[in-house]
Amino acid sequence: MSAAATPATGQDRLWSVDEHLEDILATVSPLEPIELQLLDAQGCVLVDDVTVPVSLPPFDNSSMDGYAVRVADIAGASEEFPAALTVIGDVAAGAADLLRVGPGQAARIMTGAPLPPGAETVVPVEWTDGGLGGGPVTGMRARSLSPEGAFGQVRVHRPAEARAHVRAKGSDVQAGDLALTAGTVLGPPQIALLAAIGRGTVRVRPRPRVVVLSTGSELVQPDEQLADGQIYDSNSFALTAAARDAGAIGYRVGAVADDADTLRATIEDQLVRADLMVTTGGVSVGAYDVVKEALSAVGDTEEGGGVEFRKLAMQPGKPQGFGSIGPDHTPLLALPGNPVSSYVSFELFVRPVIRTLMGLKDVHRPRTRAVLQADKALTKAAGRRQFLRGRYTDGTVTPVGGAGSHLIAALAQADALIVVPEDDTSVEPGTEVEVVLLG
Amino acid sequence: MSAAATPATGQDRLWSVDEHLEDILATVSPLEPIELQLLDAQGCVLVDDVTVPVSLPPFDNSSMDGYAVRVADIAGASEEFPAALTVIGDVAAGAADLLRVGPGQAARIMTGAPLPPGAETVVPVEWTDGGLGGGPVTGMRARSLSPEGAFGQVRVHRPAEARAHVRAKGSDVQAGDLALTAGTVLGPPQIALLAAIGRGTVRVRPRPRVVVLSTGSELVQPDEQLADGQIYDSNSFALTAAARDAGAIGYRVGAVADDADTLRATIEDQLVRADLMVTTGGVSVGAYDVVKEALSAVGDTEEGGGVEFRKLAMQPGKPQGFGSIGPDHTPLLALPGNPVSSYVSFELFVRPVIRTLMGLKDVHRPRTRAVLQADKALTKAAGRRQFLRGRYTDGTVTPVGGAGSHLIAALAQADALIVVPEDDTSVEPGTEVEVVLLG
Repeated sequence: MSAAATPATGQDRLWSVDEHLEDILATVSPLEPIELQLLDAQGCVLVDDVTVPVSLPPFDNSSMDGYAVRVADIAGASEEFPAALTVIGDVAAGAADLLRVGPGQAARIMTGAPLPPGAETVVPVEWTDGGLGGGPVTGMRARSLSPEGAFGQVRVHRPAEARAHVRAKGSDVQAGDLALTAGTVLGPPQIALLAAIGRGTVRVRPRPRVVVLSTGSELVQPDEQLADGQIYDSNSFALTAAARDAGAIGYRVGAVADDADTLRATIEDQLVRADLMVTTGGVSVGAYDVVKEALSAVGDTEEGGGVEFRKLAMQPGKPQGFGSIGPDHTPLLALPGNPVSSYVSFELFVRPVIRTLMGLKDVHRPRTRAVLQADKALTKAAGRRQFLRGRYTDGTVTPVGGAGSHLIAALAQADALIVVPEDDTSVEPGTEVEVVLLG
Repeated sequence: MSAAATPATGQDRLWSVDEHLEDILATVSPLEPIELQLLDAQGCVLVDDVTVPVSLPPFDNSSMDGYAVRVADIAGASEEFPAALTVIGDVAAGAADLLRVGPGQAARIMTGAPLPPGAETVVPVEWTDGGLGGGPVTGMRARSLSPEGAFGQVRVHRPAEARAHVRAKGSDVQAGDLALTAGTVLGPPQIALLAAIGRGTVRVRPRPRVVVLSTGSELVQPDEQLADGQIYDSNSFALTAAARDAGAIGYRVGAVADDADTLRATIEDQLVRADLMVTTGGVSVGAYDVVKEALSAVGDTEEGGGVEFRKLAMQPGKPQGFGSIGPDHTPLLALPGNPVSSYVSFELFVRPVIRTLMGLKDVHRPRTRAVLQADKALTKAAGRRQFLRGRYTDGTVTPVGGAGSHLIAALAQADALIVVPEDDTSVEPGTEVEVVLLG
């Protein structure tokens, strides 16, 4: 039965990749926000604008290790004619009760310490004799080894303008300023800013919990012995890893045998920890395609619920299911079982769902155009969009392996998908093609 | 004291960024490999070549849901003159005891099921009447609902060549083939391949455990009340996040007061879980710079051990310490305490260490060249390499904020560092500059 002969409605209609994706994304909304500790919010999306509660720095402070002094006292100072000042003590970072610097006096001050009252400027220790009575020094001796350094006399060798080496209160951000806007993804620098303004927790959209289960009575756990007719389960591993790669918390359930009751029970059991459920296998036209069978029964019967199975104008990945299940209308994507089909389907359909749940704006893999490098033309049937595995380098892409949905070895060498449009039946080497970068 | 007047050896020498980096990387080796469960090895580097123990697929199998038949029995079949065959039963995926298909017979077969003995080819169910005696069907009815479908008669509407819709044993990979080479980073497709060939665990270099602690008596935990002279600790949050971003397991210890004994005790206590120790603050020339003080005492006294403190021809990030400590010669990087200095130092020096420990080849942030977009020239003193924060878009970079090491708000808006070389004192708008992409 050709695609052209298929009725254009219902489950027998052939859907385009774009229609299917649009349909899925129309049903998925970002997860409800949650207040998280800063480091738990890494990679998550901020829900509200964050304003600055207290100016940064919160007080005038020194940007150097040196001496806090009055400007007039060091005017015209030079190494030959130094200004000699009485050191009245130390101002360390974190100091609260501050010395008052009077005329002819200096307070030894550390980077980050508050500028003490009376002081107008800071001279770096390298512009002084460090209280040792000799030439310029390169630093201070540790307070614990040399407590006398906080007192005595210091000779200053250079003048300084008012507020030199002083970071003014509020010079980074002012109280009331907008620190970060809603929608910002929290990376290390954004986490730095939130901590710096005193925010220990932050309201973000959480990482979705994605439950991955593969189906198939032929599937065996790696490291076990293969019997006749069996293969190793790879999909549940690959898609759990891919879910994590997309930003989710991935839970791998593993392989479930082709029995509708078992599958139904497993899915219902797992629902409690799922923001998104992903299955592989059992979605095609076979007599043992239990995902199809099981999910029509657990189907979310309320309006807009239930799981629908479709055929897509796509290779690999023609049979697909999607919808929602259970009391919370948990979204579910039922991917085909061939390893390459399930992986390509994940990248095209599941990854955008995960990133939509996270509240990210940028939900798709980046795409670019590249010149096809190949020995011969790529050929395919008309009427479906093909995603071939390829390697992308500097504007060119080279196919790896063939079009077969079972070619996992070639998939492991690929870093891109070559997109061959529905209408094309042949793509000559040297042609520019669309490429999905798998990153 | 000018850089030119500094002696060229020992701790008073001014080091270039590249010398310092080279020096650090010369002392760091990849971590010893460890056998990990597949999903725990995600993002890690494979240590050994992996060969294929069993061919994939392990047996000839069907790529379609359909009927396994003999070629001669369906030669010349058409919808008008179908070939009528006796259905002898089902071959499901995972089936071990297979039916034998004799002349005039067909076995109903599912995708992935072994090609049964006697059968030479597979016809998709869509090329048949599905045993219903009508026109072509679009699929099979579920076995559980319609068990009689495994028997009776099927009419085949089209011929097929030998081994059509059959995936040959070994057509993906053959036993003995090289599946993945040592040095491969394990992403989802590589994990798929390892699982598919039956590998449940794999030998990789583990993620380094990075202990991050900030120092400073002025530091207060976010969400607490600031007293006079205090600021919030942001470095321990930012660098723990940055360590995770680089691929490490980050442990945040938080802020330690400026007391050498406390710091020494904390570091010694944390060593047990550290593959790399990172501190911030206390490395400059002040009298309370306890990292310097404490680490000369815990210094690894064996050859090549100990922590050395240096001045770099760099802004921000002039004071830096690095070396190794403790019985296992655990590498330690002591970064300056200003938030921007510590973050920039992390990106330039710590990230490459983490990625070297992981065994990655690509240890640095990517760099590119971009045209400077600014209202006025960027100016700086000669003799040090400057790293300004910027935003990169399509080949241009725009500075955000100033050069101050305390400007965290601007850092949170940046996605790139603009590199201004040592000798330059002014960079005009429109000039091409080097840019580090913070990704």
